[in-house]
Amino acid sequence: MARFVYADNAATTPVSREVIEAMMPCFESEWGNPSSPHSMGISAKDMLDDARERIAAVLGCTAGEIYFTSCGTESDNWAIRGAAMRMKAKGRTHIVTSKIEHHAVLHTCKALEKEGFEVSYVGVDEYGVVDLDELRSLVTEKTALVAIMFANNEIGTIEPIEEIVEIAHAKGALMFTDAVQAVGNVDIDLSKLRVDMLALSGHKLHAPKGIGLLFIRKGIVINNLIEGGGQEKRKRGGTENLPYIVGLARALELAKENMKYLPEVARKRDRLISALTKIPYSSLNGHPTKRLPGLVNIGFEFIEGESMLLWLDMKGICASTGSACSSASLDASHVLLAIGVPHEKAHGSLRLSISKDTTDEDIDYIIENVAPIVEKLRNMSPLWEDVVKKETANK
Amino acid sequence: MARFVYADNAATTPVSREVIEAMMPCFESEWGNPSSPHSMGISAKDMLDDARERIAAVLGCTAGEIYFTSCGTESDNWAIRGAAMRMKAKGRTHIVTSKIEHHAVLHTCKALEKEGFEVSYVGVDEYGVVDLDELRSLVTEKTALVAIMFANNEIGTIEPIEEIVEIAHAKGALMFTDAVQAVGNVDIDLSKLRVDMLALSGHKLHAPKGIGLLFIRKGIVINNLIEGGGQEKRKRGGTENLPYIVGLARALELAKENMKYLPEVARKRDRLISALTKIPYSSLNGHPTKRLPGLVNIGFEFIEGESMLLWLDMKGICASTGSACSSASLDASHVLLAIGVPHEKAHGSLRLSISKDTTDEDIDYIIENVAPIVEKLRNMSPLWEDVVKKETANK
Repeated sequence: MARFVYADNAATTPVSREVIEAMMPCFESEWGNPSSPHSMGISAKDMLDDARERIAAVLGCTAGEIYFTSCGTESDNWAIRGAAMRMKAKGRTHIVTSKIEHHAVLHTCKALEKEGFEVSYVGVDEYGVVDLDELRSLVTEKTALVAIMFANNEIGTIEPIEEIVEIAHAKGALMFTDAVQAVGNVDIDLSKLRVDMLALSGHKLHAPKGIGLLFIRKGIVINNLIEGGGQEKRKRGGTENLPYIVGLARALELAKENMKYLPEVARKRDRLISALTKIPYSSLNGHPTKRLPGLVNIGFEFIEGESMLLWLDMKGICASTGSACSSASLDASHVLLAIGVPHEKAHGSLRLSISKDTTDEDIDYIIENVAPIVEKLRNMSPLWEDVVKKETANK
Repeated sequence: MARFVYADNAATTPVSREVIEAMMPCFESEWGNPSSPHSMGISAKDMLDDARERIAAVLGCTAGEIYFTSCGTESDNWAIRGAAMRMKAKGRTHIVTSKIEHHAVLHTCKALEKEGFEVSYVGVDEYGVVDLDELRSLVTEKTALVAIMFANNEIGTIEPIEEIVEIAHAKGALMFTDAVQAVGNVDIDLSKLRVDMLALSGHKLHAPKGIGLLFIRKGIVINNLIEGGGQEKRKRGGTENLPYIVGLARALELAKENMKYLPEVARKRDRLISALTKIPYSSLNGHPTKRLPGLVNIGFEFIEGESMLLWLDMKGICASTGSACSSASLDASHVLLAIGVPHEKAHGSLRLSISKDTTDEDIDYIIENVAPIVEKLRNMSPLWEDVVKKETANK
């Protein structure tokens, strides 16, 4: 294997050395239960409080607005279900979300539909940007919650969150954003962004898998998802995962520091986009400019994305077709279908998600390898044979 | 500080060296997303499958019956809410639980009551053993679920789970047991124990805080608590916490190996019970023999448990009054009230929870220190003054 290039940072990221070092004391000596009223517990509680304060400083909110969860998915579930159940009492039984949300959001909405809530799925344009006019027409005085992601995990498009917040608030609805894919890749300042709730996940920004948080703005009250003891101000039961919370704090601080590398990441992303869209019958999925700095999604006609992944993997390149969370499914991506990619083309997408650790040599290596693999796979396809025949006839 | 004695293993346990060593590769090199269809993902998936198989072997079930969660509390919530929602469709809207459950169970039941479910709280005898006759009278054809803990976390009493299963099944109800405090301290073999669901938590058995599992017997279907991607056979969304899952597997194997030390632990526990109940106006809470091998709960009249903890902590002894999860609350323990301890006495309890790592010297040190602290605190109490006066008058 000539080289190892991890270009699947949107699926998960390596745990950074600094994060591991920050967590180790919590495994080795600071293993007390933060709720215990003795020295071991008090010391753990101090570390918990410190981590929460540091995270609040990075996000531009207060420590009291941060609730730790086990993952982005739990945060999504809690925000949506918790708000829906709470607002139901006020006669608001309608939820608005988009067609391109993560399954954690969509499946929670589906479950709520079965329980009597009405859910509207706002459409997006060809780039994956939420249709604000349609959104405006959907949100009413019956709407409990508008749940729209900050940036899409498959195609990288960044949504106009400020405008969406305004539309939601104009009708008295709450606004929640799943920012799992955005945090660390976009500067988010909760003292300015007026969302009521925001979800993030540690493993997308070099903390381990198994930690997330839900920001709930002061004054907003939602029902609990996980009932239990007195943890998280009685809003989320379960003994706190101190090692990962401390790791998340360090990861968020590092993400903030590393914001300065994002223009460089975007430059490398654009090199990929420019080179790969030169391959015949290929096109960029997602918005050309309003997109995550490290995320590239290219559609290649006449091939299967899964086959391409296999060949890339043999070359030491880790990539994906879309969301890892639905990799077991053979359905075409709901995101690609929503932006108007026809069913037969939606299977030929390649998602490359790079980070500041991806070098220009890595980019070269990806570019060198993708074109011959696409060609090889197309040469195995009967559909491609027709294309070649037609092209030859037209010459 | 003469000595450090951690006697609060029921609140949480130190992460064992072997568990840390088992987890480290998942932080350092095996950080792939188990759902990713490339070499990094496949390797992570293999480790996930291996951990699940090993856990199944320890518990006496199949790998397909294990669903990883973020903690015991989440498992409790999922089992109860998931079963309630599922069984509602069959016209079963009644839940039976006990008065001495963990708050993760009780608060979930309270939430379900608000949503229209009927909940019965079966009582216990003076030792904390569930009243089987009352239980028999409570369970009907309307009962969806019987949720009774395997062993109580405050007083250590072990419940007659086999009989409880029989009572639940006789009426077609499901039986769930919160075994968070029992696993590792009692031999549990799910090929023999006929519960439908069982919850356990890693941090009670030397794995970190932030990992749990729910056993759901093959054939039993419950609704999801956390919706999302395809993880855990689509029953629990969220990218898997591979390091902690691998750590939990190692911890459970070690717990099984360490079963051989339990008679020794019980001997030390009995030394504590025997010595501490010799202190005047003290008594054992919980069953004298059907109790967890490492758990002691003694009621001392005329003192406040919290004050005792402070003094013990100054001597290097970590202990608790009851559950750490409700330590922020000043209410008397619902468990002690349920076994008939009067309100004014329920504040004076001391829970000591030891492990195989607790030495006889540690036990001596605890015994040496408790009596003088009790005496000191009583001498500060006006109620104690009355007792002394009466005793003197009677002489």
